[in-house]
Amino acid sequence: MKPLILVLNGPNLNMLGTREPAQYGYETLADLAQGCADTAHAHGLEIEFRQTNHEGELIDWIHAARGRCAGIVINPGAWTHTSVAIRDALVAAELPVIEVHLSNVHKREPFRHLSFVSSVAVGVICGLGSHGYRMALSHFAEMLQEHGA
Amino acid sequence: MKPLILVLNGPNLNMLGTREPAQYGYETLADLAQGCADTAHAHGLEIEFRQTNHEGELIDWIHAARGRCAGIVINPGAWTHTSVAIRDALVAAELPVIEVHLSNVHKREPFRHLSFVSSVAVGVICGLGSHGYRMALSHFAEMLQEHGA
Amino acid sequence: MKPLILVLNGPNLNMLGTREPAQYGYETLADLAQGCADTAHAHGLEIEFRQTNHEGELIDWIHAARGRCAGIVINPGAWTHTSVAIRDALVAAELPVIEVHLSNVHKREPFRHLSFVSSVAVGVICGLGSHGYRMALSHFAEMLQEHGA
Amino acid sequence: MKPLILVLNGPNLNMLGTREPAQYGYETLADLAQGCADTAHAHGLEIEFRQTNHEGELIDWIHAARGRCAGIVINPGAWTHTSVAIRDALVAAELPVIEVHLSNVHKREPFRHLSFVSSVAVGVICGLGSHGYRMALSHFAEMLQEHGA
Amino acid sequence: MKPLILVLNGPNLNMLGTREPAQYGYETLADLAQGCADTAHAHGLEIEFRQTNHEGELIDWIHAARGRCAGIVINPGAWTHTSVAIRDALVAAELPVIEVHLSNVHKREPFRHLSFVSSVAVGVICGLGSHGYRMALSHFAEMLQEHGA
Amino acid sequence: MKPLILVLNGPNLNMLGTREPAQYGYETLADLAQGCADTAHAHGLEIEFRQTNHEGELIDWIHAARGRCAGIVINPGAWTHTSVAIRDALVAAELPVIEVHLSNVHKREPFRHLSFVSSVAVGVICGLGSHGYRMALSHFAEMLQEHGA
Amino acid sequence: MKPLILVLNGPNLNMLGTREPAQYGYETLADLAQGCADTAHAHGLEIEFRQTNHEGELIDWIHAARGRCAGIVINPGAWTHTSVAIRDALVAAELPVIEVHLSNVHKREPFRHLSFVSSVAVGVICGLGSHGYRMALSHFAEMLQEHGA
Amino acid sequence: MKPLILVLNGPNLNMLGTREPAQYGYETLADLAQGCADTAHAHGLEIEFRQTNHEGELIDWIHAARGRCAGIVINPGAWTHTSVAIRDALVAAELPVIEVHLSNVHKREPFRHLSFVSSVAVGVICGLGSHGYRMALSHFAEMLQEHGA
Amino acid sequence: MKPLILVLNGPNLNMLGTREPAQYGYETLADLAQGCADTAHAHGLEIEFRQTNHEGELIDWIHAARGRCAGIVINPGAWTHTSVAIRDALVAAELPVIEVHLSNVHKREPFRHLSFVSSVAVGVICGLGSHGYRMALSHFAEMLQEHGA
Amino acid sequence: MKPLILVLNGPNLNMLGTREPAQYGYETLADLAQGCADTAHAHGLEIEFRQTNHEGELIDWIHAARGRCAGIVINPGAWTHTSVAIRDALVAAELPVIEVHLSNVHKREPFRHLSFVSSVAVGVICGLGSHGYRMALSHFAEMLQEHGA
Amino acid sequence: MKPLILVLNGPNLNMLGTREPAQYGYETLADLAQGCADTAHAHGLEIEFRQTNHEGELIDWIHAARGRCAGIVINPGAWTHTSVAIRDALVAAELPVIEVHLSNVHKREPFRHLSFVSSVAVGVICGLGSHGYRMALSHFAEMLQEHGA
Amino acid sequence: MKPLILVLNGPNLNMLGTREPAQYGYETLADLAQGCADTAHAHGLEIEFRQTNHEGELIDWIHAARGRCAGIVINPGAWTHTSVAIRDALVAAELPVIEVHLSNVHKREPFRHLSFVSSVAVGVICGLGSHGYRMALSHFAEMLQEHGA
Repeated sequence: MKPLILVLNGPNLNMLGTREPAQYGYETLADLAQGCADTAHAHGLEIEFRQTNHEGELIDWIHAARGRCAGIVINPGAWTHTSVAIRDALVAAELPVIEVHLSNVHKREPFRHLSFVSSVAVGVICGLGSHGYRMALSHFAEMLQEHGA
Repeated sequence: MKPLILVLNGPNLNMLGTREPAQYGYETLADLAQGCADTAHAHGLEIEFRQTNHEGELIDWIHAARGRCAGIVINPGAWTHTSVAIRDALVAAELPVIEVHLSNVHKREPFRHLSFVSSVAVGVICGLGSHGYRMALSHFAEMLQEHGA
Repeated sequence: MKPLILVLNGPNLNMLGTREPAQYGYETLADLAQGCADTAHAHGLEIEFRQTNHEGELIDWIHAARGRCAGIVINPGAWTHTSVAIRDALVAAELPVIEVHLSNVHKREPFRHLSFVSSVAVGVICGLGSHGYRMALSHFAEMLQEHGA
Repeated sequence: MKPLILVLNGPNLNMLGTREPAQYGYETLADLAQGCADTAHAHGLEIEFRQTNHEGELIDWIHAARGRCAGIVINPGAWTHTSVAIRDALVAAELPVIEVHLSNVHKREPFRHLSFVSSVAVGVICGLGSHGYRMALSHFAEMLQEHGA
Repeated sequence: MKPLILVLNGPNLNMLGTREPAQYGYETLADLAQGCADTAHAHGLEIEFRQTNHEGELIDWIHAARGRCAGIVINPGAWTHTSVAIRDALVAAELPVIEVHLSNVHKREPFRHLSFVSSVAVGVICGLGSHGYRMALSHFAEMLQEHGA
Repeated sequence: MKPLILVLNGPNLNMLGTREPAQYGYETLADLAQGCADTAHAHGLEIEFRQTNHEGELIDWIHAARGRCAGIVINPGAWTHTSVAIRDALVAAELPVIEVHLSNVHKREPFRHLSFVSSVAVGVICGLGSHGYRMALSHFAEMLQEHGA
Repeated sequence: MKPLILVLNGPNLNMLGTREPAQYGYETLADLAQGCADTAHAHGLEIEFRQTNHEGELIDWIHAARGRCAGIVINPGAWTHTSVAIRDALVAAELPVIEVHLSNVHKREPFRHLSFVSSVAVGVICGLGSHGYRMALSHFAEMLQEHGA
Repeated sequence: MKPLILVLNGPNLNMLGTREPAQYGYETLADLAQGCADTAHAHGLEIEFRQTNHEGELIDWIHAARGRCAGIVINPGAWTHTSVAIRDALVAAELPVIEVHLSNVHKREPFRHLSFVSSVAVGVICGLGSHGYRMALSHFAEMLQEHGA
Repeated sequence: MKPLILVLNGPNLNMLGTREPAQYGYETLADLAQGCADTAHAHGLEIEFRQTNHEGELIDWIHAARGRCAGIVINPGAWTHTSVAIRDALVAAELPVIEVHLSNVHKREPFRHLSFVSSVAVGVICGLGSHGYRMALSHFAEMLQEHGA
Repeated sequence: MKPLILVLNGPNLNMLGTREPAQYGYETLADLAQGCADTAHAHGLEIEFRQTNHEGELIDWIHAARGRCAGIVINPGAWTHTSVAIRDALVAAELPVIEVHLSNVHKREPFRHLSFVSSVAVGVICGLGSHGYRMALSHFAEMLQEHGA
Repeated sequence: MKPLILVLNGPNLNMLGTREPAQYGYETLADLAQGCADTAHAHGLEIEFRQTNHEGELIDWIHAARGRCAGIVINPGAWTHTSVAIRDALVAAELPVIEVHLSNVHKREPFRHLSFVSSVAVGVICGLGSHGYRMALSHFAEMLQEHGA
Repeated sequence: MKPLILVLNGPNLNMLGTREPAQYGYETLADLAQGCADTAHAHGLEIEFRQTNHEGELIDWIHAARGRCAGIVINPGAWTHTSVAIRDALVAAELPVIEVHLSNVHKREPFRHLSFVSSVAVGVICGLGSHGYRMALSHFAEMLQEHGA
């Protein structure tokens, strides 16, 4: 059975391709999901790709990943900077986490420079567009190969 | 067809008339909605007036306004000071936004002096009670007249 | 006798229509005064409309309003952010005050985000151009109707 | 009829016994609920014990308590540090509130040292595990005895 | 032999019942001591109850508790916010400590929001009046039962 | 010839007796001037007592005092907290200065806790009402006696 | 019977006349006490003049003044900037307090610019040497005359 | 016709040669004006050299320069650090501005390190005495030569 | 001819495999260089891989890349947090830059949370070990493919 | 007669060898005193070695040293970070002071990084255990030799 | 023999004319050196004009200037904001220093508003392009004339 | 073979005896080196004594010490306050480090109160001149004797 990676997207990412294309590009969330699926397939991983504008739903998904998934790729969107609850959910899940941002948050408003997630993640990738998601998946593949069978 | 303005209310505004009347007055949310409807009618506008205690629901409503509405009047309540997600949703909607507060937030606790919404809004009205909502609607009417047909 | 509202304008507002039109629009101070006069007339109010670049003169005007006027609409301009003396004068006048700004100060430099006036005003309107002045006048009309005869 | 106390738990507390046992111990949320029920029974109180990962749901529950309950015991979890909306809901409920934390938040990250709830609560108990909940219930019993019949 | 708990009170608590009753209530220190003695008796604990306005005396008492007492309940009063020496004494005593405050310090001046003691204590109870002391004693009773014979 | 002391009053002090009597008492500026004249007379001093709402006028008066007066008693009012220009004028005058405030500024808003004048004054008296002015004059009398003939 | 004023001096003031004469002058504590006694006598007041290097002793003296004295003149010395306990003791005494400093603290290190006492005092006098103490006494005489007899 | 440069001096600069010579040297304002006139003449420029202690007067002069002058050399003195109104006036004038200080403000009190003018000026010269003014004039000459005919 | 990517390493990275392996792993700089070379080869890129403990040398290398390279992968090590000079050199090179860190800097000391490089880079990868370097190279390959040919 | 050095120890140092040995080692205060006595003897110095948990006692000892001792070695313990009174006492003593800490305070909590004593001492030694005290004594021996006979 | 002035340029200034011309103009470092040489010649000065990207080299040059040069004109570039070592070297050289910046640093990122050099320099010129260097040289000429033979 | 201690000196220390003698004394670096050599010899240690103005060179020396030296005495000079790279090099060397400063940095500018080295050193000695270096060497001798053969 292939290892399962949960790919989670926070608020407003459903507007991708529409919302502020200068920041986020013209690719839609469906395009992004497809790119992730292709990469996962190429690395022998399975993925579940989800988006929500409801913090509680994201927390529920993270809890449910515990013991069922091998890792989480998360773009918490705006919650990156405000949600301690998501941080705690990720810790409770006891899974390796990679934080991804499509845009380079360091070029934007100061309140986007703080992340509650980064210090409980394995690592962070930002500014590299949808490629960042695919890199995160390839990193899980590499990690699983090293530590796994 | 009349231009449609979305009038949005954040958490706890359903308690209006009950909650802290010294701050917010004795008018209920229904009274407020009626006042807005009357003003809208007088200015040839249509409105949708909504309230929610669920941030995700508010975000969904904002997204849905894109391309369908002519503007948003929003009283984000407590989320004013904490929600980057709502700010991003408003930007994604690509609509003119007027931020309204019933009470004068500058007279209250310091954490209410910061707004994540103000800098993405056209303007802000606070401390003028329900009149603030009606003014915002009349401003949209004036704006539409200037720029519109 | 009609209630008298004092409409006060701080430094540099005499340059309106000339100065930074991207921020403040092409309307001149005379246009603004005319708009206010029209609105006042429509609401059964009388106004005195003044502008000064001299802080002391503004303070003297505010003192003289005590007991003679029914309210003050003030756009303190740059003094909003630096003058405790004007704040104290407004308190000494014991009149309801509405603070108005033509531009949305929250979109500008951080030092414009602090106002010494807001916490002694009834409310604040910003970013809605000359309409903000007219709204403030209409609010006084509404207040006087409620509390008055 | 016994006085009703609402016992509310914020995000991630459903993971109790699983999540970070070094911080929170091995007791589950069900154990905690049972302990509260026993204590309530012993003091002649009735309780409703609830947990949610959805901020909006918590706000709705708090609103509904108004006029129906005699007090609220709340462990707001991560929302303690970020939610002004819950603070406002508690104020709107016009009920005595006791804030409880299982772990000693003062030993943890600096962002956990700020609480938006503490200054609208009667008091705060932290670091005493599930005993803290039971103490809060016994305090309500004592308060009701003093002020009640 | 019954386990001995040291109950310590910092500066100005001798004025209890006299000083700022709006903050601290009308109960005197003697009343408080009696309440603690009763609770201790009910739980099979012995207590020593003391108050001092001299920091050095408090430190000496804490040192002397080492190896002789089973725990310390401390209301450090104003020293909570200023004394690193008391914090260090508590650490040197190598005993479990519960910090108690009669009033809810979070509702008071900002300089009362910092505690040098909280992060070296097991837990903190504030705002629950003399009940807080009695809760702390009952917590020690419960702890000793769990870990003890 | 009697030594001349300049007694200066900043903005809004002309409103004394009218403005915020809870802060400043019911005594008028004329009463205050008379009290100072009486005290000066009793100590063999001459005074000039002035008030202005125009910063430039105050600066001009301070400059003119240089070489003509023996000292300055100044209540800079709101300019205490904002005017570097008055501070520099006082330094340029090369005269001993005593800063006086009618109210206790330390009990008021945080922005009133900073004074640009205090660190270039001989000393500061606040919260003692009009007595503070008279004390300052008596201090100059005492200083002149010590250093003078 | 004459009203009794307590004149209190904090740490290191016993070194007066010896310690840093550039800051504090050549007058000794005994000289200062004598000056106060003379002034008190002239105004029909009795005084007790004390100094201590022990915070606890100062607190005890303040407590004992409650109901026995008409006011407190206090130079808390270095404790001005660090002791919340003395602040609380002064509040508990429920007496009018005047804070005095020999030197102008505003000309010295930044940590001397904060006072825990000022906001619970009637007023503050600093930088006017021993004259400050005598002024404080004369202010109490004036207050007692106004409110008394 | 020669290009006209406005040379403006803020508060207290009329005291030049008298005030704090260790900071500002023994040269008077008249000497400074003469030096500027000579330099201007040498470079084919005309100047108007003015000083005021009244902020409003300075603002009026700056407004009047618009369209009439080729540039402004300004030493705003103490207003550098406190006047947003002067900053806004300079922007409204739409002229190149060079900020000059006689002393090196970076060696002085921290509140002199902030300038509201610097970020709207072409450049800043400080610490080079009256030579700074003459350099500023020569820079305008050079600029006009480059851009002019 | 293959596009050339410069891979730069800042101070102490020559100690890799030796220095703090808990932070950085057991891989040496030579291993890292080899991994990069392999990845580059696989993507049709050429690389130059360098390390220096001399800031000036790094700046010289960055300058020399201008017009000769297609991009820069840089791990600035400790200079990330302190060197404005390297930031300016990267801007001067006018090349796309990807910032890489072997460890997750967000889990380390607060002074490592500030990067002078991030806001002038395309993106940032941290915490993913040597894989981060290889990801950066693959991102350049992808970018060149999109924009190139 | 041998020069006398006062060796002073602040609060909790009587617990040495018992308290937090990971921080302070297993040596007792008596061992430390003996080591100092031996070193003093070897360098021709006499010492008085004292410890107190009472700030007032420490101040009294420092005052008494004036004119009687040749220098002070002080480990102010926790008072390092909180006591302005001890700082002032050391200045009043007009003696050279060396500040010593057994542990390296820079490795501990941020509130231990501030010392009120360091800036009035000749120098500071920390982290070198009891050797620090002996070094301080040898430094006094060397100083006395240089400046003495 | 002509007085020798050292003209020093920090990191990245070798890229002048290439790097960010919007900030720094199209003039190269060689052009700048030539302009300085011409000005020096006109004023009877000799110059050495140097640039380095190596902080150590700059420090060595400054040390070597001691006793050999009459002054230093320095544009420390990015090191302005980060190098205490260069500040200390300039102090050690015991020469008058003028700090020059081509661009107006006050219009750029906040981290460029701090200069470690300004407070040890005679004065600062910024924003006036290469003219700033020439002004600094002419100032040295003027200074030498005043103080010299 | 004697244990080898590396004695390192940062920027500007080559100017010793010349530079700011009020801060650093009249002793030269050669004198200092000789004093260290004598002390080392007396304690059976060998030393290498070096100074550099090039950060990279210092880092290289520290790296080379790893496995070859028994300890490092370092006076990082101005880099103390700015260089994370040197801190990281010292950690990478895995050797005990003693930080030494000739002057008492706590008496100097605030930016000298922060050290990046202190928290990775065994201990710190400052303000005791060249004696500090010799103390550091004697401490290494003592450490080696305790832990060594």
